[in-house]
Amino acid sequence: MQFLKTLLLLACAVAASQTSAHAQREDVEQVGAMFDDALTRSHCYEWLRYLCKNIGGRPGGSPAYTAAAAYTAQMLDTVGADTVWLQPVRVPTWQRGTVARVRIVNSQQVGTQALSAIALGFSGGTPKTGISGEVIEVKSLAELDKMNPERIKGKIVFFNRPMDATKANTFHAYGGAVDQRTSGPRRAAELGAVGALVRSMTLRHDDVPHSGVTMFNDQKPIPAMALGIESAELLSALLAQEPNLRINITADCAAGKEQTAHNVIADLRGSELPNEIIVVGGHLDAWDVGEGAHDDGAGCVQAMEVLHLFRRMGIRLRRTLRVVLFANEENGMYGATEYARYAREHKKERQYAAIESDAGGAAPRGFVMDALPDKQNNAHQKAQKWREILAPYGFTDLHTGGSAADISKLRDLGTVLFGYRPDSQRYFDYHHAASDVFETINKRELELGAAGMAALAWLIDKHGF
Amino acid sequence: MQFLKTLLLLACAVAASQTSAHAQREDVEQVGAMFDDALTRSHCYEWLRYLCKNIGGRPGGSPAYTAAAAYTAQMLDTVGADTVWLQPVRVPTWQRGTVARVRIVNSQQVGTQALSAIALGFSGGTPKTGISGEVIEVKSLAELDKMNPERIKGKIVFFNRPMDATKANTFHAYGGAVDQRTSGPRRAAELGAVGALVRSMTLRHDDVPHSGVTMFNDQKPIPAMALGIESAELLSALLAQEPNLRINITADCAAGKEQTAHNVIADLRGSELPNEIIVVGGHLDAWDVGEGAHDDGAGCVQAMEVLHLFRRMGIRLRRTLRVVLFANEENGMYGATEYARYAREHKKERQYAAIESDAGGAAPRGFVMDALPDKQNNAHQKAQKWREILAPYGFTDLHTGGSAADISKLRDLGTVLFGYRPDSQRYFDYHHAASDVFETINKRELELGAAGMAALAWLIDKHGF
Repeated sequence: MQFLKTLLLLACAVAASQTSAHAQREDVEQVGAMFDDALTRSHCYEWLRYLCKNIGGRPGGSPAYTAAAAYTAQMLDTVGADTVWLQPVRVPTWQRGTVARVRIVNSQQVGTQALSAIALGFSGGTPKTGISGEVIEVKSLAELDKMNPERIKGKIVFFNRPMDATKANTFHAYGGAVDQRTSGPRRAAELGAVGALVRSMTLRHDDVPHSGVTMFNDQKPIPAMALGIESAELLSALLAQEPNLRINITADCAAGKEQTAHNVIADLRGSELPNEIIVVGGHLDAWDVGEGAHDDGAGCVQAMEVLHLFRRMGIRLRRTLRVVLFANEENGMYGATEYARYAREHKKERQYAAIESDAGGAAPRGFVMDALPDKQNNAHQKAQKWREILAPYGFTDLHTGGSAADISKLRDLGTVLFGYRPDSQRYFDYHHAASDVFETINKRELELGAAGMAALAWLIDKHGF
Repeated sequence: MQFLKTLLLLACAVAASQTSAHAQREDVEQVGAMFDDALTRSHCYEWLRYLCKNIGGRPGGSPAYTAAAAYTAQMLDTVGADTVWLQPVRVPTWQRGTVARVRIVNSQQVGTQALSAIALGFSGGTPKTGISGEVIEVKSLAELDKMNPERIKGKIVFFNRPMDATKANTFHAYGGAVDQRTSGPRRAAELGAVGALVRSMTLRHDDVPHSGVTMFNDQKPIPAMALGIESAELLSALLAQEPNLRINITADCAAGKEQTAHNVIADLRGSELPNEIIVVGGHLDAWDVGEGAHDDGAGCVQAMEVLHLFRRMGIRLRRTLRVVLFANEENGMYGATEYARYAREHKKERQYAAIESDAGGAAPRGFVMDALPDKQNNAHQKAQKWREILAPYGFTDLHTGGSAADISKLRDLGTVLFGYRPDSQRYFDYHHAASDVFETINKRELELGAAGMAALAWLIDKHGF
């Protein structure tokens, strides 16, 4: 009897492992077919060309943003979304204006010399003749806070801590330096400075200045400009010899009115569980310099491609696939906040999972995942199995951790979050700069990312957490 | 007693695992320090700039190759190699000339129209008025072989099978199509064709033609030209409507004299086992179009950087680190053959391991390894452990398989071979084309590759196989 039982158990185990191997083989084949399709029939590269070349920079609330929302909504409708709608979002705006000049005035060494500069988003403007002052160079906010505030009054604070080139993941290098840009000018203003300069957030050694938001909150804005790396290093070198050097900043940027922008939302309705939602998304707004190719046109067209790929291949998920192109990530995630508010209030819907692409259009490396603690372990174990299926296409990494920007607002609702991670080496060469253009994107790299997002959505839907 | 024995064994196991964990931690720290150093103190990007911008294309046996050998030898000496020598290699040469014209003649649709074309290496030339003929389009050599030879005589054979875009690894797509370029023109000539056209070996959809060697062996060369993809597709579309369309090919390329080129060889002598050699290398020759940035300037400066990194950090391996920059990979691996001959004859030296970088300068993916069957398993197991240490820097892949070009000649000597594998998506956008220029290389990606090669050499030397 015991022997028969053992034999039976053994037979069951063998059958189960065969079934499991068979199921895994099916997954491998289906995922392979999705990659093949993306690499040969995708439109996403041409969509991105249109977003970059015909529309270009598109800050939330700008006419260009409206054009981008209309274009992407139309494309989603054309390729067969069941529903497409525009969700209104009130967003703050800011006008860059036409002048952003930073000049060294009467240096003993170089005379009067322009530096390569760009206004940070939500920088204050200046009178027509600009503001002038001596410069205090610091490497951190903490260094500034330790100073006698009397030294800072009436001065221009220059934040010059480089991103740490030894971080293999450049996002870690960015995370370790970006407080200078986001919070430095406000802190300087609170201490009485009349202007702020920030070394550009890039690891590339050139003189292209990189913009990005700076947050004054309730503080009255002061002019806040990013300097190209070569300009920042020149200024620092001069200050070492001429500590009383004066800088003139002239800029006509200014806060604008609140406007309505729209999240673009397109559904491919689920066949069995239509109220369970798998979101794929990126943010449609992009800084007004450059074309928003890597940040984040790539993520938008990849999310759109997921829906199109399912349509082309005749795949309908059990759950609803929802493309969300978020309005206004750059200036405070207003689009994400509005979508999360909607999701919280529509209780009959469950936001099952969300996949975001907002780390550029380079070749795939993998995903970072995040979820509430009670879901984290189980979801991570499942996802590790899927990673094996995706690895031949370059998706070799699957870590847990803070994974995303816009979709992070869904975490508290129990949504399992995945941030797509392409290779990071080149991202900050282009980020928020005039160099973030279509030509820096490789068609296959873009398509591989989209295919991986589609495959992940399909695996999530098939196997669940 | 049994109890005590068990306890003792347990204690030993714990101690061993602690020692092993400690050793692993040491490796992780040392490898981390090597990456930090490469990302902040490397010269390899500037060396590559010089090779590309001041020297440019450098076919083996050309004056430019001589300049490249002199430059790299000097740099290796400057950064502290113990010995640097130039190993002479006799190489065949070929002159591209100044004319390479392919024209559709008197099409009903488009009249007379030039196609974007470039002569393949070792193509035959034509009379001043060119050669003209009707075109036979085929998708493979097998298709050609099945034809009645009478149909081929006096014609121009057009090989037009695309690289397979569904291969995630583009080298596999290249491997599946390149026989058309390497062997197609010879086969066409054997069957009486007067010329050959080959669709460029690229996955990018543009009209940049890609050169590369074609091999006639004992067959008298005929003119053999690569067409840009758009030109190939136009020609194919026209042939569908006008099968009797005529093409004129005019080219003044011709075989040159045999010349002497040099392998550049630099040693950093081992402290304990100086006769055991760890080779790091790439090939210094590059096609005369473009600047040889990815193919293979990147690999050369990475190999040089390994030596320089050890010098900067004061690391001396137990074994001798040898940089070999191979002469003439592109036209038949004459440099590799000469080095392997030397290695075979110098029996007191043992070629312990070899690491080659000849797959471009993109971000790291890992290594492919190869060895004689008796060494393969053990070496692969060891290397898998090292892969874990290298994974945080992007080296997530370690496969066995045909791994390399130049160093493959050492396999029979028992050398364990490693081919460095950067991401492959962009490689064939540039390969053998005018677009293979310095600007397509990212400094950090180049440095990460070099650091990974250095770390691998260090781990091989420390732990052995």
